[in-house]
Amino acid sequence: MQLPNFSDVLHARQTISPYLMPTPLYHYPGLSNMLGAELWIKHENHQPIRAFKIRGAVNFMANINRQIKARGVITASTGNHGQGIAYAAKLFGVQATVAMPSGANSAKMRAITDLGAEIKTIGEDFDDCRKHIEANSNPSGPYYLSSGDAPSLITGAGTYALEIIETLPNVDVIIVPVGGGSGAAGTCLVASTLNPSIRVIGVQSDAAPSAYLSWQSSKPVTSQSRTFAEGLATSTPFDLPQAIMRQHLDDFILVSEDDLKEAIILAVEQTHNLCEAAGAASLAAACKIHETLRGKRVVLIMSGGNITLPQLKSAMDTHRDTTNVATGMLSNRKTAHNHI
Amino acid sequence: MQLPNFSDVLHARQTISPYLMPTPLYHYPGLSNMLGAELWIKHENHQPIRAFKIRGAVNFMANINRQIKARGVITASTGNHGQGIAYAAKLFGVQATVAMPSGANSAKMRAITDLGAEIKTIGEDFDDCRKHIEANSNPSGPYYLSSGDAPSLITGAGTYALEIIETLPNVDVIIVPVGGGSGAAGTCLVASTLNPSIRVIGVQSDAAPSAYLSWQSSKPVTSQSRTFAEGLATSTPFDLPQAIMRQHLDDFILVSEDDLKEAIILAVEQTHNLCEAAGAASLAAACKIHETLRGKRVVLIMSGGNITLPQLKSAMDTHRDTTNVATGMLSNRKTAHNHI
Repeated sequence: MQLPNFSDVLHARQTISPYLMPTPLYHYPGLSNMLGAELWIKHENHQPIRAFKIRGAVNFMANINRQIKARGVITASTGNHGQGIAYAAKLFGVQATVAMPSGANSAKMRAITDLGAEIKTIGEDFDDCRKHIEANSNPSGPYYLSSGDAPSLITGAGTYALEIIETLPNVDVIIVPVGGGSGAAGTCLVASTLNPSIRVIGVQSDAAPSAYLSWQSSKPVTSQSRTFAEGLATSTPFDLPQAIMRQHLDDFILVSEDDLKEAIILAVEQTHNLCEAAGAASLAAACKIHETLRGKRVVLIMSGGNITLPQLKSAMDTHRDTTNVATGMLSNRKTAHNHI
Repeated sequence: MQLPNFSDVLHARQTISPYLMPTPLYHYPGLSNMLGAELWIKHENHQPIRAFKIRGAVNFMANINRQIKARGVITASTGNHGQGIAYAAKLFGVQATVAMPSGANSAKMRAITDLGAEIKTIGEDFDDCRKHIEANSNPSGPYYLSSGDAPSLITGAGTYALEIIETLPNVDVIIVPVGGGSGAAGTCLVASTLNPSIRVIGVQSDAAPSAYLSWQSSKPVTSQSRTFAEGLATSTPFDLPQAIMRQHLDDFILVSEDDLKEAIILAVEQTHNLCEAAGAASLAAACKIHETLRGKRVVLIMSGGNITLPQLKSAMDTHRDTTNVATGMLSNRKTAHNHI
């Protein structure tokens, strides 16, 4: 397996820069005071599809040949990758089909059809869905794009890490939500080349820990996915990002489903940004390991913002008292950095 | 009274561009389908302080002389202008004091102190507060900056209109929330020069209609402010933006407090952005006058995002049924473009 490298990320940036503006990297004094660290957020939720996945999707679509362009592209997604592919397909005049599991996030489904892509609802969960279209792909049909094992998606995602380190060369820690792992792997490629002392930390939900378990044991581990954070909901790891994370990822944190809901509300209160559960995972992790972050310069990837109204309502209902969310979150942390 | 002009806006852009990135202007297919228009949103809520006010504040602070810099600056604000001044003061090493009325938005107050500015709580409402510091300002104390009658604030705000028309030269309508009126006045300066056929429409809450009444009657009209949208809460109009709006503003809409709450939720559902009530006013207006927008290319200014958790909760509680917000909003509109 040929792994992509840092120079591929530079090339990806050259490819996508005519189409996508850099996203803001903002300092949050309130969160910094709360966590005792210098806290910055990389706002991938400000992308046109409100998720970092657009970077890899544009990078992929800009590089396909005439034959693939004529066949069209099919991919499996829980939503944000699908939106990225739909957006990029429209940009380059390619027919896209996005296979999604039943019960997918309705906001993401609507956004994909609004962008002109076709949706096929297949399987009960993401892995069912993915296996079905993998098994049924053939050279006469649309080109099958893996949502995790494609180098162009990883190097595309890596471009946000490039923007971070160019803006903030002395960053100490970057915390990245992990679903398939393209964001974390892309960040690893960039940080390990530009400044190996930067700690890159991945985050998953403890209700969908397959990437975490696979990274920890250095072999693929399948694990049930029961998380409400569809952006983190994979039960089978992807080989390519896992290979990169095994080389370069410094740590991997699990957070609970309640941690994710609390972090969604904390982000509303402190940053006035909507993030989906996966997008809030980095903030949830920072709260969990805040003692290890003390005095450090920390960047959280707010990887996506596509939360539905019912999901937001559910997170808000968990916090009937809307005063002092921040204080409440930290006082609930008896132990920091508590792996399952 | 010497009015600022288009060339002053170009100069403002030159001044602020080293400090502020252009904000995104995104097309929303879902909202477009709903309203029967080609709908775009200018995301001033993506600014570092999550409000357009930062443009004028940076423009003002970059141009002050050494004497004013030494004295420091004092201004009155319901919040976003104060955040802008605090941000710009920090940038240029100036001591800033922000006078705010009692009961001000707690999120905005915290952000102002986080940025290192001092807050003085004065008066029951914005006008009380403003009159008090105006009356007490003197040459030996900090320089008093009017939040509405300063040309640099208007030309700074105008830079967002410049970005819009450069990106979308054939825009038909731009809808702008009006508090003091600097955003609408800045947009008027730019649109009237670059393309006078662009319709610029202002929006206020019918619970704080002083700028509307003043524009309509071509003379200053004071009117009680009872709106929960503190970004729209002025009860006395400002002369300078009013003079520009009288020359160039094409229409002025009033929306209800419930319209604002509905628009906050609609923005969550359709754009996955948090906007404060003032920031949602342009969307509320577009829903109200959707019949007149049919087939047109429309840009809404999402002017700010600094909503508090209790405000968001209150807006969500108004909509216990979180399905079909969009359909509900339009079906409630019996009459379009219904001025009080």
